[in-house]
Amino acid sequence: MQGTTGTPSQPADTYPPTDRTVPTRSPDRAAYDKELVHSILDEGYVCHLGFVRDGAPVVLPTLYGRVGERLYVHGSTGSRPLRMTGAADPGLPVCLTVTHVDALVLARSAFHHSINYRSVVVHGTAHEVTDPEERRTALDALVDHVVPGRSRDSRPANKKELAATAVIRLDLNEVSAKLRTGGVNDEPEDLALPHWAGLVPLRKGYGTPVADPGLDPATALPDYLSAG
Amino acid sequence: MQGTTGTPSQPADTYPPTDRTVPTRSPDRAAYDKELVHSILDEGYVCHLGFVRDGAPVVLPTLYGRVGERLYVHGSTGSRPLRMTGAADPGLPVCLTVTHVDALVLARSAFHHSINYRSVVVHGTAHEVTDPEERRTALDALVDHVVPGRSRDSRPANKKELAATAVIRLDLNEVSAKLRTGGVNDEPEDLALPHWAGLVPLRKGYGTPVADPGLDPATALPDYLSAG
Repeated sequence: MQGTTGTPSQPADTYPPTDRTVPTRSPDRAAYDKELVHSILDEGYVCHLGFVRDGAPVVLPTLYGRVGERLYVHGSTGSRPLRMTGAADPGLPVCLTVTHVDALVLARSAFHHSINYRSVVVHGTAHEVTDPEERRTALDALVDHVVPGRSRDSRPANKKELAATAVIRLDLNEVSAKLRTGGVNDEPEDLALPHWAGLVPLRKGYGTPVADPGLDPATALPDYLSAG
Repeated sequence: MQGTTGTPSQPADTYPPTDRTVPTRSPDRAAYDKELVHSILDEGYVCHLGFVRDGAPVVLPTLYGRVGERLYVHGSTGSRPLRMTGAADPGLPVCLTVTHVDALVLARSAFHHSINYRSVVVHGTAHEVTDPEERRTALDALVDHVVPGRSRDSRPANKKELAATAVIRLDLNEVSAKLRTGGVNDEPEDLALPHWAGLVPLRKGYGTPVADPGLDPATALPDYLSAG
């Protein structure tokens, strides 16, 4: 299948690799498949948003949401990165990264210790969103990113709350995933060493929800929380 | 207690706040206590390392280790950030961030949705470590960061592995923690809304270890893995 974006040979279901998204090491771990990238993004709770301030890098954790090929980040209108993406500005160059640690990889050799992980790195320019309709969509996506479907089961933002909230958008154009999966890669001569080797998966999912003390006891736990 | 570092009034057990480590919003969530910072750093598996390349920010997930007031990151001698911190260079300005998501905060209002989290942001200049003794210490710390005590139960790096590995150091000087803890902060007029509200903790810890298929069945699971 030939795509309509990227280079002529670029399939529509992958992101075109660029100098920034082809890693200098372990290029076999890099992937550009959109479905894979979306699944990694959708599973995360926070991203790490990098930008340059006074020539130095800054990396802040923040919530995010995805709508198709757009990522949204929000914050107080007074926060630093949000102030730097005003509508009058040319936008803020950012790097947005999401990482999941799936398992610890314990090898017989110290050198081959590793982790199984899935990460997505997005390069681009963030712009402030001013269109009211897109801001509503973005804010719903941010809430639904925390718990899918939750935006329909909460009171929408009012005028005062909307006025206090800045939303920025980052399009998914220059994107790569990077993964390590599989088992231990020890050297053949180390296999008989007496050290335990294998994978230690990390636990995922919801613990037991704790209702707000002020909650009406008649309010049942929603289905979307009991499935975790 | 008066400290010996930072400003005259700076206690020795906290990091002196700087322009970069005092947040523009929610300053009440910022903390500079060294013990707290260390505990957040020690609980993480990956950090997000930010640096500037060709004027643009780059944020990459990577393993790290801590020895006292020093953080270490390692990688292939060919990888980008490692190449940029050569001993002959003035070092690489970086921002290193570690974040834990502890719970989802579901409010009755979309606006007050949040997460409970603990994060540490370190600003500074990374330098390549060339001293053989410090390199050994750093590599042990990197393995012990994945599983405490593991470096003593694995084959140490040999000459070839050491030659392939670059280590960089970032001192803990300009550091802050940021946290959200506690419950839901809904507006008083929203308390009677029919939406479930509360905290959804996220599960933590080890799942069931999976031994390498080539492991001698006589090799027992070490105690340090069964306690998770």
